[in-house]
Amino acid sequence: MSRIETKFAKILAVLLTATLSCGSLFAQEALGHRAKTTSPEINPDGTVTFRLVSPKAITVAVSGDFLPGGDAQMKENKDGVWEYTSDVLAPELYKYHFVVNGTYLLDPSNIFVCRDVASIFNIFIVSRERGDRGWLYQANDVPHGNVSKVWYPSPTLKMDKRMTVYTPAGYVGGKEKYPVLYLLHGAGGDEDAWPTLGRAAQILDNLIAEGLAKPMIVVMTNGYPNTPAAPGEFAAGVNVPTIGGRVRGEAAATMEESFPDVVRYIDKNYRTIPKKSARAICGLSMGGGHAYLISKMWPDTFDYIGLFSAAAFLNKVSYVDGKRVVAEGVDPVIEEQLATLFAKQPKLYWIGIGEKDFLYPGNKVFREYLDSMGYPYEYVETSGGHIWRNWRIYLSTFASKLFK
Amino acid sequence: MSRIETKFAKILAVLLTATLSCGSLFAQEALGHRAKTTSPEINPDGTVTFRLVSPKAITVAVSGDFLPGGDAQMKENKDGVWEYTSDVLAPELYKYHFVVNGTYLLDPSNIFVCRDVASIFNIFIVSRERGDRGWLYQANDVPHGNVSKVWYPSPTLKMDKRMTVYTPAGYVGGKEKYPVLYLLHGAGGDEDAWPTLGRAAQILDNLIAEGLAKPMIVVMTNGYPNTPAAPGEFAAGVNVPTIGGRVRGEAAATMEESFPDVVRYIDKNYRTIPKKSARAICGLSMGGGHAYLISKMWPDTFDYIGLFSAAAFLNKVSYVDGKRVVAEGVDPVIEEQLATLFAKQPKLYWIGIGEKDFLYPGNKVFREYLDSMGYPYEYVETSGGHIWRNWRIYLSTFASKLFK
Repeated sequence: MSRIETKFAKILAVLLTATLSCGSLFAQEALGHRAKTTSPEINPDGTVTFRLVSPKAITVAVSGDFLPGGDAQMKENKDGVWEYTSDVLAPELYKYHFVVNGTYLLDPSNIFVCRDVASIFNIFIVSRERGDRGWLYQANDVPHGNVSKVWYPSPTLKMDKRMTVYTPAGYVGGKEKYPVLYLLHGAGGDEDAWPTLGRAAQILDNLIAEGLAKPMIVVMTNGYPNTPAAPGEFAAGVNVPTIGGRVRGEAAATMEESFPDVVRYIDKNYRTIPKKSARAICGLSMGGGHAYLISKMWPDTFDYIGLFSAAAFLNKVSYVDGKRVVAEGVDPVIEEQLATLFAKQPKLYWIGIGEKDFLYPGNKVFREYLDSMGYPYEYVETSGGHIWRNWRIYLSTFASKLFK
Repeated sequence: MSRIETKFAKILAVLLTATLSCGSLFAQEALGHRAKTTSPEINPDGTVTFRLVSPKAITVAVSGDFLPGGDAQMKENKDGVWEYTSDVLAPELYKYHFVVNGTYLLDPSNIFVCRDVASIFNIFIVSRERGDRGWLYQANDVPHGNVSKVWYPSPTLKMDKRMTVYTPAGYVGGKEKYPVLYLLHGAGGDEDAWPTLGRAAQILDNLIAEGLAKPMIVVMTNGYPNTPAAPGEFAAGVNVPTIGGRVRGEAAATMEESFPDVVRYIDKNYRTIPKKSARAICGLSMGGGHAYLISKMWPDTFDYIGLFSAAAFLNKVSYVDGKRVVAEGVDPVIEEQLATLFAKQPKLYWIGIGEKDFLYPGNKVFREYLDSMGYPYEYVETSGGHIWRNWRIYLSTFASKLFK
């Protein structure tokens, strides 16, 4: 046998050796677990009812971002079904989980779960009419773009990396060239963040269908220069994500230094309009910091820049004996980069932040600097803090302003 | 203002109206929930330890497909941490969940969850060396293909449908043309089944990297002719999946009648080798039935046919006054279709089934018929029943035999 055939015979033998200690627990596997109740139920009056079958529980609570106090006790009905009905909820995407006797529990009746960094929770969407915020975040009967997980080489970072690419409806089989939005995630996130909790594909599908955004390609990278991909998608065993997300030791370069690798790959392999006026970059939190750093390092690349709850700082940061040192005042290098960027008159410099965001003070300092220099920008302040609700609003707003 | 501008102003107003009853529960949202223990932990000796913090629980069990009896009681250590350590587990992908006081619970320490029809559970992979079964199912340090969610038109079904398309490493930017495997899911499943529990992308990446399979495109359709897409991916509200999965009433045609729509779309929009010798079709359970029906209805289309735990029947099924009637004996139409198919000498007709599969008797009748007619096929029988463990083995085996 040839080498290949020998390997084949070996692996086939491994595959077909059925010596597992496995019983036939899932004899009709596809039937699986069946939920014993309906939860959540979105009622006609706009309230939402949550139910959990847990006859032996002592306390059951629902914890969700729609509850003013953060959580609410559920009450046991007959048959051990615990129940809670919310107030009338505004159209929105909400997240929740249960807490049974102090233990974190997903709703076994709800197949819609999302991960954010290392948390898993249930989600549901409330929508009452076409065009409301819930409608914008859900899949509607509109033309859908495609969403791809794409591996690309980053010569600067010396590794292959994974990203998510949205191409709008009409892209496949067409000849049109499209502008590109680069959409960056926050600390602890990855290339799966914007397509899941961020609802990027649904937001773009719906805005485009309504004529509120131009058809565009959206590129969602992985923002860690030493991490190839989301947890489980590359060879690092069980890789539970953490804030900071260091995986492969020191990076070969920073995200901002390496970003032209991404733009070059996209311009080479997609039907793009490869020029500044057809490129936008934005991000949330750390990704907002990246959008800030990348746009000023490459001032001829992006005409639209969006900073969502961004970590955008004017100080010089250095490391002395491994210790992080933040210099007083505005770093002259940053000052010059921003001067160059704004001298080139980007079409839009957009800043959004929540009034309770922990980055609000830093953003205020940054805005005051822009004001003092007479650099033009648009600013939106929303309620709430450093939360996905705000980031979905900022994406929806920013995307609708691009390439017009 | 123009019509577009008016709409824009309206939707922007909706977006920016921050009047939700939402508190700042997730003030630093990305931090989210933190697990208080490590679970599962794959120990150096090949056992696996599960842990759950649940200080007020009375009984805690782990339920998994690696447990001979289906589940095992966990023991409470100090600090309310419940723990169970398994026997040494063979390399494999396993699934599990916890049961606390009789209530179904996902492991809050494990971010890896999978959905199968309407069930959500945790998964983990045990691998000890390159080439073992766990290795084949995990992401390794090998070139990765891309995985795309693609919307395509089906004129026969009169709707747009969603599918998953795997293109092998080297596809993007290359010029080579590739053979295509059409890979079909079972009852209650959808286009997300093979890419998640089926580990189709990992299996193909790894087989191709090892030289055990030819680089190929893999197309994973949605097998319900009246359903456009997986739950949550199209406009039908909260669409909890069920076996049967009827969503939009009667279909315009059957899956087998409509399948040329898929093949035409793929041949038009991908760099395929558009001929019989470069096309394979296979599926599990209902999808195995589809592979059986489609291959004999279109005998010039596929040279490789794989039936995994397939619902492959020789009888004529009709509906009389809405009642399903299964005729005795072999349907003459099926007999003629199979005669035509085998007269055209497909390169491989492959059948795999588990010895405890509920479809085993039907498969035996089918094989006896093929034997009686002298139609050549390959047959593999594995332990266990109608389970994903078997379907991953069958895919790995079948894919390694294609296009050679």
